[in-house]
Amino acid sequence: MEKRILSGYRATGRIHIGNLFGTLQNWVKLQSEYECFYEIADIHALTTNYNSTEQMKSNIREMATDWIACGLSPEKSTIFVQSVIPEHAELHLLFSMLVPLGWLERNPTLKKQIRDLNLQGKLNYGLLGYPVLQSADILIYKADTVPVGEDQLSHVEITREIARKFNSTYKPIFPEPQSLLAKSPRIPGLDGRKMSKSLGNTILVNESSEVTKEKIKKAFTDPLKIRKNDKGHPDGCVVFAYYKLVNTDKIEEIRELCIQGKIGCVNCKEELASLLNETLAPYREACSKASQDNIDEILEEGSKKAKKIAKETLREVKEVMNLW
Amino acid sequence: MEKRILSGYRATGRIHIGNLFGTLQNWVKLQSEYECFYEIADIHALTTNYNSTEQMKSNIREMATDWIACGLSPEKSTIFVQSVIPEHAELHLLFSMLVPLGWLERNPTLKKQIRDLNLQGKLNYGLLGYPVLQSADILIYKADTVPVGEDQLSHVEITREIARKFNSTYKPIFPEPQSLLAKSPRIPGLDGRKMSKSLGNTILVNESSEVTKEKIKKAFTDPLKIRKNDKGHPDGCVVFAYYKLVNTDKIEEIRELCIQGKIGCVNCKEELASLLNETLAPYREACSKASQDNIDEILEEGSKKAKKIAKETLREVKEVMNLW
Repeated sequence: MEKRILSGYRATGRIHIGNLFGTLQNWVKLQSEYECFYEIADIHALTTNYNSTEQMKSNIREMATDWIACGLSPEKSTIFVQSVIPEHAELHLLFSMLVPLGWLERNPTLKKQIRDLNLQGKLNYGLLGYPVLQSADILIYKADTVPVGEDQLSHVEITREIARKFNSTYKPIFPEPQSLLAKSPRIPGLDGRKMSKSLGNTILVNESSEVTKEKIKKAFTDPLKIRKNDKGHPDGCVVFAYYKLVNTDKIEEIRELCIQGKIGCVNCKEELASLLNETLAPYREACSKASQDNIDEILEEGSKKAKKIAKETLREVKEVMNLW
Repeated sequence: MEKRILSGYRATGRIHIGNLFGTLQNWVKLQSEYECFYEIADIHALTTNYNSTEQMKSNIREMATDWIACGLSPEKSTIFVQSVIPEHAELHLLFSMLVPLGWLERNPTLKKQIRDLNLQGKLNYGLLGYPVLQSADILIYKADTVPVGEDQLSHVEITREIARKFNSTYKPIFPEPQSLLAKSPRIPGLDGRKMSKSLGNTILVNESSEVTKEKIKKAFTDPLKIRKNDKGHPDGCVVFAYYKLVNTDKIEEIRELCIQGKIGCVNCKEELASLLNETLAPYREACSKASQDNIDEILEEGSKKAKKIAKETLREVKEVMNLW
């Protein structure tokens, strides 16, 4: 049987270049080797943003548009919306009975999130249970492979533990999914931290060339290189990291120029902005062509397809748990 | 509009006399004043018993049978099974985003449960979220009244807080339900603690007269009254507490005899057993007459009726939350 993938993103709207180069390009490749399910996780988006949902529907549509513009094919992959499929919530609730609090409290991704978003003492129940819902998302499709970034490895580990515990408590119906770590480089945000919408340090795939150029102009670079002639340290520099994403054969040359103090940050940034805009141009064109009606149809079709599988898994779950 | 009640029990099978005199008799009365929804909470039963579900279906059927034998009328009340209605799980998941962990960690009912069941350090995520699910159970029917025992007051308070927070974050669609504290006496178990199946100290409504008699024979009584002539302390005595439940005009007489050391515990217990068996006889007869087929039909009919309302509430919830 073909191996099955489940992956997804919180429904946060337009995607950024961290998503594109870190994840999407990988997802696109995986379509030819796996049966792929890609989820727009609107409920997960509530874990940190339950009180600002005005943009939820447009976030979902924009994210789906960007995914497809970046190469996800609705013919090859099942693209769906989490909240449309109640079976995720049901499995999440059943799993919650099997999960010791300690598994969640020790979760390093949560600890990092608490630090990054200043959530100490403000944690809600749903955020603590983030990996429980994610496990339900994965296991309701019996996905055996989960492409993830490093920060999600601990969540897949919790998924494996839940699958093991469920299988040994009732009957073995779930696979223990494997993480598939993307080989893509870690893509820093404009301020040097992880690129993330909640940190406000992104370059969006679908923004204008001018905006991209302006953002790069203000990007964090080597603080020790103040004048053009100062010797730079490209390996800690955000701008140099972005050079690795664009199609250029000048990368080693630029590294040398920077190290030797022969190029200034202003020039270096202008050059990058132009190369990055060139690289993003085809995606931007595809985004602008996608129609919203079509997107709704794709999501409804995908969700219908996903629901069929989710329903069957939940039936089986309830059977082995002896529920009504 | 008629006021609406939601109440229920974890699906633990046959009911005991604590349930009957403490709750059921009250529920039966409420049927004539309120629109009543009575829930068999099979998912809540998993919070402490996820790993022993073999009896789940028979527990549900037995509980429903006992309820009806005790006077709940499927014509007057909606009797339904929690897990049959996915909207409970969906609303629970959405609520989980609004609930600060502190509300749950401070919950005195949970703290007591941890002590009683020795759960320190063994808490699962679902048990911590018990009141979140209970809030979803109540609010999905927009119940405004919740008949409860004292130990559940804190849960209704959490429900009110969730309703308030939801209403102020999105739109005011939920009532803030009021607790309706039953005036029934606290009914101790055979060992003097709260009567509860998980403590193994119950007298079941539907057990044989002989079993009841045997159990009462071994009931905990005044430890200072060893010989018949010792003076007793009826107000701390389990057996004397049960006298208050049966139809007798001799209660003051028995109190005096006990205090003065003129009746021994053996005689006193025999007398009580016979009175209690008499009181329970009509319920026991009704239980034995109820057919299982009929029960399944009643539960399916009730769940269908409940689902219709739950579905409409969830639609409204998703609308005001701007979900897909």
